[in-house]
Amino acid sequence: MALHTVRFDNGSAPVQVPTGTLLTEAARQAGIDLGQPCGGQGRCGRCVVQVSEGSVRRRSALRLSEADINEGYCLACQSIVESDVAIRVPEQEKLERRLTTDRTVAEIQPPAGYNPLHDQNIHRVLLRMEPPSLDDQTDDLSRLRTALKQQAGFSQVTISLPLLRSLSELLRQGNWEVTCVLEMLHDTERVMLDERLVAVVPRVVFEDEPLWTAAIDIGTTTVTLWLVDIMTGEVKAQVSEYNGQIQYGEDVISRIIYSGRNGGLANIQEKVISTINNLVNLACKRVNANPNEIFKAVIAGNSTMIHLLLGLPPQNIRLSPYVTTVNQPPAVFARDLGLNLNSEATIDCLPGVASYVGSDITAGVLSSGMDHTELLTLFLDVGTNGEMVMGNHEWLVTCACSAGPAFEGAGVVHGMRATKGAIEEVWISSALSQHPYEPTYRVIGGTRPRGLCGSGLISLLAEMLITGVVDKAGNINLNQAEVNRRIRTGEHGPEYVVAWGDETESGQDIVISTVDIDNLKRAKAAIYAGFNVLAQSVGIPLEMVDQMLIGGSFGKYINVEKAVQIGLLPDLPWERFQFLGNTSVRGAYTALVNQDARKRVGEIASRMTYIELSADNTFYEAFMSAMFLPHTDLSSFPSVEAAMEKQPI
Amino acid sequence: MALHTVRFDNGSAPVQVPTGTLLTEAARQAGIDLGQPCGGQGRCGRCVVQVSEGSVRRRSALRLSEADINEGYCLACQSIVESDVAIRVPEQEKLERRLTTDRTVAEIQPPAGYNPLHDQNIHRVLLRMEPPSLDDQTDDLSRLRTALKQQAGFSQVTISLPLLRSLSELLRQGNWEVTCVLEMLHDTERVMLDERLVAVVPRVVFEDEPLWTAAIDIGTTTVTLWLVDIMTGEVKAQVSEYNGQIQYGEDVISRIIYSGRNGGLANIQEKVISTINNLVNLACKRVNANPNEIFKAVIAGNSTMIHLLLGLPPQNIRLSPYVTTVNQPPAVFARDLGLNLNSEATIDCLPGVASYVGSDITAGVLSSGMDHTELLTLFLDVGTNGEMVMGNHEWLVTCACSAGPAFEGAGVVHGMRATKGAIEEVWISSALSQHPYEPTYRVIGGTRPRGLCGSGLISLLAEMLITGVVDKAGNINLNQAEVNRRIRTGEHGPEYVVAWGDETESGQDIVISTVDIDNLKRAKAAIYAGFNVLAQSVGIPLEMVDQMLIGGSFGKYINVEKAVQIGLLPDLPWERFQFLGNTSVRGAYTALVNQDARKRVGEIASRMTYIELSADNTFYEAFMSAMFLPHTDLSSFPSVEAAMEKQPI
Repeated sequence: MALHTVRFDNGSAPVQVPTGTLLTEAARQAGIDLGQPCGGQGRCGRCVVQVSEGSVRRRSALRLSEADINEGYCLACQSIVESDVAIRVPEQEKLERRLTTDRTVAEIQPPAGYNPLHDQNIHRVLLRMEPPSLDDQTDDLSRLRTALKQQAGFSQVTISLPLLRSLSELLRQGNWEVTCVLEMLHDTERVMLDERLVAVVPRVVFEDEPLWTAAIDIGTTTVTLWLVDIMTGEVKAQVSEYNGQIQYGEDVISRIIYSGRNGGLANIQEKVISTINNLVNLACKRVNANPNEIFKAVIAGNSTMIHLLLGLPPQNIRLSPYVTTVNQPPAVFARDLGLNLNSEATIDCLPGVASYVGSDITAGVLSSGMDHTELLTLFLDVGTNGEMVMGNHEWLVTCACSAGPAFEGAGVVHGMRATKGAIEEVWISSALSQHPYEPTYRVIGGTRPRGLCGSGLISLLAEMLITGVVDKAGNINLNQAEVNRRIRTGEHGPEYVVAWGDETESGQDIVISTVDIDNLKRAKAAIYAGFNVLAQSVGIPLEMVDQMLIGGSFGKYINVEKAVQIGLLPDLPWERFQFLGNTSVRGAYTALVNQDARKRVGEIASRMTYIELSADNTFYEAFMSAMFLPHTDLSSFPSVEAAMEKQPI
Repeated sequence: MALHTVRFDNGSAPVQVPTGTLLTEAARQAGIDLGQPCGGQGRCGRCVVQVSEGSVRRRSALRLSEADINEGYCLACQSIVESDVAIRVPEQEKLERRLTTDRTVAEIQPPAGYNPLHDQNIHRVLLRMEPPSLDDQTDDLSRLRTALKQQAGFSQVTISLPLLRSLSELLRQGNWEVTCVLEMLHDTERVMLDERLVAVVPRVVFEDEPLWTAAIDIGTTTVTLWLVDIMTGEVKAQVSEYNGQIQYGEDVISRIIYSGRNGGLANIQEKVISTINNLVNLACKRVNANPNEIFKAVIAGNSTMIHLLLGLPPQNIRLSPYVTTVNQPPAVFARDLGLNLNSEATIDCLPGVASYVGSDITAGVLSSGMDHTELLTLFLDVGTNGEMVMGNHEWLVTCACSAGPAFEGAGVVHGMRATKGAIEEVWISSALSQHPYEPTYRVIGGTRPRGLCGSGLISLLAEMLITGVVDKAGNINLNQAEVNRRIRTGEHGPEYVVAWGDETESGQDIVISTVDIDNLKRAKAAIYAGFNVLAQSVGIPLEMVDQMLIGGSFGKYINVEKAVQIGLLPDLPWERFQFLGNTSVRGAYTALVNQDARKRVGEIASRMTYIELSADNTFYEAFMSAMFLPHTDLSSFPSVEAAMEKQPI
């Protein structure tokens, strides 16, 4: 087979590849990671490159205009090398690493009356042993076990082979004075099953030295880690970082597809493990801890994230009838995954419910306390997907809506994540104002705008609806163009200009088109239809909801009024809304510092009734009704109706 | 550092090594394994090579004569390269691979009334499941668990991460009809702790298909494996092979020293694992089985062998106060060790007692039944070491004598293992016969003799004593030289010629010298002194022993009369002696097919009182008394005294 030389303009060495090689593969060989948020499906257009010499064969040119193609642009994931080529890599939209600590630090207090000896299961004991002699030739492990029993009351300690291999040296290194870390394993009734020796530290460790553990949330977009001193229950460091898997897809479906490729699963597993290991190092640096001295981690995440973490093939999550390999994963050890904690540290992945309702949601329910309240509660976690739970201390129903990542900026031409340069809120002046239909906006970081993030899109759409820039069907009101210079017909049909090119970073107008609005409508309709299905499944009208809890990073920044106005959230009195932030990591933390809470997560997972929407006609009907702004049934949105009536059209 | 070229004359490519490299290391790089039975300590002389060009620096020349050195001979393990050299490798005494099946096949019957469902803990169940659907989205593991509970009554099944990773595919491959292999884990009271899923076979396995397991004895010299169909309890194949570690030392001490070198432990561990894997392949081939379908192995071996198998540093076994890392190793899995069984197969290493009384002995006691009898029993296992146990159903005392490998042919100039060409029995004609003091001998394989194996040495020494060729102190009777042409003074002092050069394979005389006899005396005295110590420790005279059981391959071929005559065994009526063969593998088999027997091994290990001889004055005194032939106290050997009196001196 003929070999061709592919040169990239970023200074990397040219690579030789056979005819038929994808440009993304050639780039990988040249050490260039082209972003493939759609998983190399040719859908997202992020991997666009320009062929400056030679030619490639395009399998697909979706998202490229005739002019683009004439200028040599192509999608690297869909273009095959068939001669020597030179490739220009446009400056990628760099993934900006944003730590949540940049914007907020949750103040976490240990549970009241926290007692590490009773509440959690990692313990530390100091042992002093007589050294062996010709009169006492007890083997090293038995000597340690006897000391554990006599000095600490542990009578059934087990040890792993790797730890056993270093035991003799550690005991002698500590001169028969060592600190043991143990994990107590109970069944669900708290009957002791096992006492597991986790580590032998060859020195005296003092009572007030921290004993490190971690709570981790693996989000599709962001991974968050809390470093916890289990002796006090205090969270000593909170760190977050984008999930390194993002380069293989922004949503779980893209990642599942990627993981099905040859070597894909191992590769994508490695990415999230690297991300966690980076966070471990970062957190440890802050508090001057050693990763090797983190002895346990509790992890929450959606079912795909947990499968990828554990290296379980996730294919059946994507294919009907959508089943996971496991919802309640067995405990594994850090060494099984290559996690940079103590190699014997237990990795406890909390139990989930279904393919699209994972342990991020059960942890969220735990952290919200909705399983313990008499109040009728609706819990929503909008991240890359939209999962919701309705219920109280007696019952829980749940479903997941494939809302799509529109609220994370994908599927919208000028959409972007909530990072620097994103418009996060918009106000449009009314028809009666001095400058009618003119927008005002706020940009994250106060810079020139680069695009619109989720909260900005919701805010914009609500304002457009209230001011009549769009009608209830989501159509941009072209009739208004006479009095509204922001309305025009663009490449994708009617559009509204949010920011003129002379205000923006790129110099190009930032607009929202009918096509964008349609995507946003689908996303919000899916979520609202989910609420309808849950409510109907238990025969309770939505307005009876006593409290509406919103988790996930998305919830932190949206304006409830606007979200209600577009029909994303039900029209409840504002005092019933509560934003909880990252309920997933908080739930993992709660399960870490409290064994009863850990048991409760299991009960929550068992108690939750999962409704599969893809097989549900109710959902389809509710979705169609919700494809209006705010809804076909305006009577469900009295406050919005009132607001719209106030506006002159 | 200067590089030198080392050429070996065996056709291997020359290697480049820096100044100071040992010849053994250069040989290793050239792909030549020079035998190092002493562990590279310069003691055994087996790695001798001849420098034909260039020169080496000799760190030690023990065992080499002036003439040898002048001819260029050197010990490869003690000689350092300091210029380009050419090396001649003398034809090594090749390790002949001898399968025990060549000489005997033990006929093993499954225990009477064997019931696989009750007696042992590996079970196989066929499950049929409904495939998942949109109406039943149960995760794969829960679906399997439900089937295990409903169709087979298993309610608390655990699964490992590696098996979980392949679960989804296996279930679908079998079209939701699979055969599960499970291991039941009980505590010592047979309370069920766990049901462990070992394998999911994606097909219907029929009742009468074998379910493979293995019993293994890791001897210092020989490794033995029995392949067992656990459905019937039948031993379907018995295979043995030299332990591949032999090249790093014939005794445990040499191997411990070797394992302390950089990389030594991993290397020596790999050797025994290769040996076992070879045996697995060999046994599987015989019965047309797949190694991947062996689901459990029970292993017995001395404590050093078990440490080396598990990769546990054995250094403290060798150093006072002689303690192991562990006497009761935790169960591990085949994948942890790289054993070529099903990767989930449990490897159950039976419990030992002390550094020099390992599970080969506890398994031996189990297999001998001495822990269940009222008869006062003395059990001896002479392999590379000599371990012994005295007791009955009420008590057990044990000790180990560092007898040294004299009876395996080491430490005796013309000693060799019991392979082809070894003289295994000798008779010496009496002073009154036609040809006085002339020996007759039997050679293994009926070939020309190459040396003397253990049974041959015992037989020879006994005959020499009875005929007055040696006196009670073990001195060769030079006064007899006038009438005995076989007596002469050789390089090592007085010697007796067993075979003239014209009868032997090498053309050289096969002799036994006073030095050899001294080594044999030390070995037999150590063992007999051990008997004394055990008897004295419980205040029972040796002659009260009701049965004397002899295990180990050594025991299979020795002549009791001769062994008593030299004072190796106590002078008991012959009917009290019983040879049991390889009691270690038989004990492993018994523990494999019977859970109560498995529990009994643990009880045996706990019940045995270990007497450390190195700290015991009684032993030293008894040893000195036993340095005579048969003993200082002839009254303990009435039958020998009578035999000696019959002979005219």
